[in-house]
Amino acid sequence: MEVGRVLHMNGGVGEASYANNSLVQEKVISMTKPITEAAITELMMCSSMAWRPGKILCMAELGCSSGPNTLIVAMEFVKIVSQLCRKHGHDQLPEFQIQLNDLPGNDFNSIFKSFAPSFHAQLLQELGSSAPYCFLSGVPGSFYGRLFAAKSLHFVHSSYSLMWLSKVPEGVEMNKENIYIASTSPASVINAYYEQFQRDFSTFLRCRSEEVMGGGKMVLTLLGRKSESACSKECCYIWELLALSLKHLLSQGLIEEEKLGSFNIPQYTPSLSEVKTEVEKEGSFTINQLEVSEIEWAACGSSGFCSQEYSKNGIDDGYNVAKCMRSVAEPLLVEQFGELVIDQLFENYRNILSDRMSREDTKFINVTVSMTRKE
Amino acid sequence: MEVGRVLHMNGGVGEASYANNSLVQEKVISMTKPITEAAITELMMCSSMAWRPGKILCMAELGCSSGPNTLIVAMEFVKIVSQLCRKHGHDQLPEFQIQLNDLPGNDFNSIFKSFAPSFHAQLLQELGSSAPYCFLSGVPGSFYGRLFAAKSLHFVHSSYSLMWLSKVPEGVEMNKENIYIASTSPASVINAYYEQFQRDFSTFLRCRSEEVMGGGKMVLTLLGRKSESACSKECCYIWELLALSLKHLLSQGLIEEEKLGSFNIPQYTPSLSEVKTEVEKEGSFTINQLEVSEIEWAACGSSGFCSQEYSKNGIDDGYNVAKCMRSVAEPLLVEQFGELVIDQLFENYRNILSDRMSREDTKFINVTVSMTRKE
Repeated sequence: MEVGRVLHMNGGVGEASYANNSLVQEKVISMTKPITEAAITELMMCSSMAWRPGKILCMAELGCSSGPNTLIVAMEFVKIVSQLCRKHGHDQLPEFQIQLNDLPGNDFNSIFKSFAPSFHAQLLQELGSSAPYCFLSGVPGSFYGRLFAAKSLHFVHSSYSLMWLSKVPEGVEMNKENIYIASTSPASVINAYYEQFQRDFSTFLRCRSEEVMGGGKMVLTLLGRKSESACSKECCYIWELLALSLKHLLSQGLIEEEKLGSFNIPQYTPSLSEVKTEVEKEGSFTINQLEVSEIEWAACGSSGFCSQEYSKNGIDDGYNVAKCMRSVAEPLLVEQFGELVIDQLFENYRNILSDRMSREDTKFINVTVSMTRKE
Repeated sequence: MEVGRVLHMNGGVGEASYANNSLVQEKVISMTKPITEAAITELMMCSSMAWRPGKILCMAELGCSSGPNTLIVAMEFVKIVSQLCRKHGHDQLPEFQIQLNDLPGNDFNSIFKSFAPSFHAQLLQELGSSAPYCFLSGVPGSFYGRLFAAKSLHFVHSSYSLMWLSKVPEGVEMNKENIYIASTSPASVINAYYEQFQRDFSTFLRCRSEEVMGGGKMVLTLLGRKSESACSKECCYIWELLALSLKHLLSQGLIEEEKLGSFNIPQYTPSLSEVKTEVEKEGSFTINQLEVSEIEWAACGSSGFCSQEYSKNGIDDGYNVAKCMRSVAEPLLVEQFGELVIDQLFENYRNILSDRMSREDTKFINVTVSMTRKE
């Protein structure tokens, strides 16, 4: 599977869209806000970033997707910098360049037609007529390659994107009916996943080290884990349950055994120390903060689409988590199994999720790292 | 009508798409290539633009649309600069920032999925493994406002976009069954159009004067006219014939008189001297070249979509011109008259065009201006 071509969140603004099913991602951005704020504030204190007339500040949101979350951190960036400028008596605010990156399959049209106008409206509302110029642009491409001109970025943010690998690792054929690392995965499979993460994450850091100027900041949040074991339930369970649902389709003859056997999710959920090791090995960035946090699966909530109707119909947590996962994984699943089984797959998944969530403690683990590009 | 929301070329890559019906625009870019090449070459000779290691060159294509034309000039820019760098013995090529601008309704997704990958492939093919980094981005918004950071652009190009006004001028109610300036338009209507052009074009120049750095170049091609008279047939006839087709629908009761009466195309096709006057009035740019050229309507040709089938079916010039005009004007027409009449409208238009083109000399007039931002 060509991950760079296939992987993208569901586009548009309809019921199955990522835009309508990204509440947990929004909550994670909100949870990690103190880290983001600290990085932006520190950026503005840095001598080489000092304010001068005509200054242009450039930020990038990597894996921006298409929805209400796309521009949350950009708004924070503009607001914090503007406040700091005013506090220090600078009348003329800098201009802001906001670069929104995702893979070419991302729905940039929706960003430009729906979310960019709201951004500008909110800016005017919050900062009034003195709101600074903010120039938005869409940058298509994989963040495992160069995306921006050398030394052009002051601030980079990414949330819930960097656990996606550039490809399904080679050497995972033995993973049989698992679709991600699972308790029954052989050590060779776990190693193949980890090595792919190491290659990808170090490539990511090398590319960004070219693009972020000295003193620039980067805040990354990934789905990860607390445990040192890559097959820990805390990071694998969500995919194990999707594999259960796929096995159910297999038993009904709705998908082929070979298709299931060859399907693996191009993702890796690293531990704090695995992230730290790669950053130190690459060497261009200093780690300021490295933190783990957790959020209930139930936080997938309903992000508002027909929510009244949902509650009437007895919508439960399993339904919401299944919808969230669908908005994220549908393009990958359609590529492998076709469109026809998707509704059934997520109906099963919903039932499995509802059952497990009522009996077990189910959480996503987040790893957040805040770094400074060495001068 | 909110022009900024409604106006865009037909998206996608299907039969009625702009991507498949933009052959005349491609030919115009090709005709004006000597002017573009001269501007880029001169840019590289300018002392303040001198090559240094780590140099980043930034260009913008304004009104880039979505099709094979979107990246033609960007490719020229990269190739010419690379050749000049090598000629002067610079091993390390600069990095290129290519900013693609159009209104938010433009199909940026198609650019990113279809045309950007071809661009990178062509670059590799033509420049080999030493091809420089080219970073593409999409910039949604009206060029009658600020789009880019201050002093960030080296080179700006725009073709067949700037004749579009920011809005239908006020005070054209008297234009009755005309949809653009016509020989029967009252002087007040012609004035209203001209004044809107003056406001828009001077706003455009003021915005670009902020964004283009001293010594930077700008090459603009607009649909225009040779005559000093704004109601000259050379610029109005194409819309007069579309108005004829609309009147035909009116006589059949397929559209409402009021709808036709209130429909006016937000376009103005200036003369050389009108362009010159605005540039001199604004004052930030020096004109290097100001030229007029012409191209037969028949150059709309067929850009390849099922062309074999077309020739079997006796496709003629009228068919091609109608398709080209449809790919450009359909969103405006749908907004005013609804989708249902569009096929019929362009069938009539095709017949009218075929008839007139067989008997008359029918040409588009282009005005091209090449400028330098004063230091």
